[in-house]
Amino acid sequence: MEKEDATTLSSSLRPQFSVLRPSSSPTIAIVGSGAVGCYYGGRLAQHGLPVHFLLRASYDGIRQRGLVVKSLDGDFALPPDEVNAYRNPQQMPKADLVMVALKTTANGMFRSLVGPLLKEDTVILTIQNGLGNEETLAELFGRERIVGGLAFVCINRMADGSIHHLDHGQIKLAEFDRPPQPRTARIAELFNGSQVRCEVLDNLRYARWEKLVWNVPFNGLGAVLDKTTDLLIGTPEGEALVRSLMAEVIATAERLDLHYPADLADQKIANTRTMGAYRTSMQIDRQQGRPLEIDSILRRPLEIALSNNVAAPCLQTLYRMASLL
Amino acid sequence: MEKEDATTLSSSLRPQFSVLRPSSSPTIAIVGSGAVGCYYGGRLAQHGLPVHFLLRASYDGIRQRGLVVKSLDGDFALPPDEVNAYRNPQQMPKADLVMVALKTTANGMFRSLVGPLLKEDTVILTIQNGLGNEETLAELFGRERIVGGLAFVCINRMADGSIHHLDHGQIKLAEFDRPPQPRTARIAELFNGSQVRCEVLDNLRYARWEKLVWNVPFNGLGAVLDKTTDLLIGTPEGEALVRSLMAEVIATAERLDLHYPADLADQKIANTRTMGAYRTSMQIDRQQGRPLEIDSILRRPLEIALSNNVAAPCLQTLYRMASLL
Repeated sequence: MEKEDATTLSSSLRPQFSVLRPSSSPTIAIVGSGAVGCYYGGRLAQHGLPVHFLLRASYDGIRQRGLVVKSLDGDFALPPDEVNAYRNPQQMPKADLVMVALKTTANGMFRSLVGPLLKEDTVILTIQNGLGNEETLAELFGRERIVGGLAFVCINRMADGSIHHLDHGQIKLAEFDRPPQPRTARIAELFNGSQVRCEVLDNLRYARWEKLVWNVPFNGLGAVLDKTTDLLIGTPEGEALVRSLMAEVIATAERLDLHYPADLADQKIANTRTMGAYRTSMQIDRQQGRPLEIDSILRRPLEIALSNNVAAPCLQTLYRMASLL
Repeated sequence: MEKEDATTLSSSLRPQFSVLRPSSSPTIAIVGSGAVGCYYGGRLAQHGLPVHFLLRASYDGIRQRGLVVKSLDGDFALPPDEVNAYRNPQQMPKADLVMVALKTTANGMFRSLVGPLLKEDTVILTIQNGLGNEETLAELFGRERIVGGLAFVCINRMADGSIHHLDHGQIKLAEFDRPPQPRTARIAELFNGSQVRCEVLDNLRYARWEKLVWNVPFNGLGAVLDKTTDLLIGTPEGEALVRSLMAEVIATAERLDLHYPADLADQKIANTRTMGAYRTSMQIDRQQGRPLEIDSILRRPLEIALSNNVAAPCLQTLYRMASLL
């Protein structure tokens, strides 16, 4: 791992990002009280890291019962007095690493939720869905703070507040619009040391668009039609529709110089067939009457397609239908 | 009105279509026990014509309570002993005029339901939705029998079996693939003499495609999204989606040499705004778990677009989504 030269960084006015220092035990803040934030934050806390959770709906439950996780990688529970839970970010310590796991529908609250947690050298890792999250955080807080993460995980919060981690779990990390830095590897180490497989990628946009190839059809159609993934590709018409959407996302990515294997759609569909009757997060959000992540998963990709003169009529139709839900 | 020359017709092997004879009181069979068939058949019976109803779900109710209609053109009721109700077409008299008001999802039953009602000169009037109904009837029973009708009516069957005629009610008639004949005017007279406004059109395809300009977006989206018409055009995205679908239908019709006023979509949308929270028949069918008229309203128009090299990606996406319901 490269050694940082603090003087150089200071002289160029770049913050030092204390999370980088191998000797320190970084203070970690989790913003977003959903299943994803609680699971990953819980793993880090389980392995001895000082984790502070900003919670909303789940605050009372965690105060009473602690954080209870059933996981295919091993169940664990943190008792109430071992969970640093907060309702108000003003009461939290400044963090070395802020992990943002909010629904993207709450991105309008970044300033009030993330702002109070920052010191000069805080790194912000967003593991949210879709496009635009890094850009919005960068505009508010400075682009050099920002690391993007993709969570490949199947996870739900149950009625009793416990977290059920059902499948997968890997995180892939990349710097926002620049190659990996020493800190990227250091964050990956934090996860890998906490039973979360984590990999560093060279190109965040490549990974984000690849994930969209799956998220656009399955989250979009899953929400509009209220159908699990197996049903969406269970008929020739359904599979053709999924493939048309994937083709438009891939064509847009190609226009951005992001080139994927020719059989990417085949791979994604074959992989989806192994998942059974999977409910995407957007389908679950719809069923539970929560706001849908339409902007980050459908609208932004569509805008990028249109502004790059890529025809995306299926995506446009899907976006417009989703916007009517 | 032209006078028929029976000898000429016989020598050309064309049937005489007895419904044409002004002196006769034509025997009328209604095939299709839904609200539309019961309403129009009921109006004809109310005005003294011999009408025979082929019923399925509503047979018992009508046998017990008769045919009860609340209508903005005047309520009426036919007591049980004045309704000629049948479950089995084999027991019905041969008809001079068969009016088909089946859901198009039952078109596979034409042979068994309509066949037994026909004599050599029976005219078949279909007032079903969408495309393909005349063609299918013509293939089975001969094209010269076929008259197409468009019912512009807002009508529902209530839980107690009564019919509520809420708005509009006009029928437009045209011969299948030929100009109006004397019989067309005669059928229109039967309706006009029975409190049903009826007009004869020159070009059935022109009228069918014009109706599709409305039916494709509002029935299709209404069913997929389970939204009333006012909500579908209640946002800019929704209105844009409706307009995209209308534009694809109009472009397909233009390719078929059917030319509409340039402001047709504007007219349709303006007219829809006056309808309030209207549930289309396909939305109601979805809510009640009945089969949807996807083939006649979405699939056939799409096939005609594609086979004429008209790009119809919105319609294709909508059709595929509807097929997954």
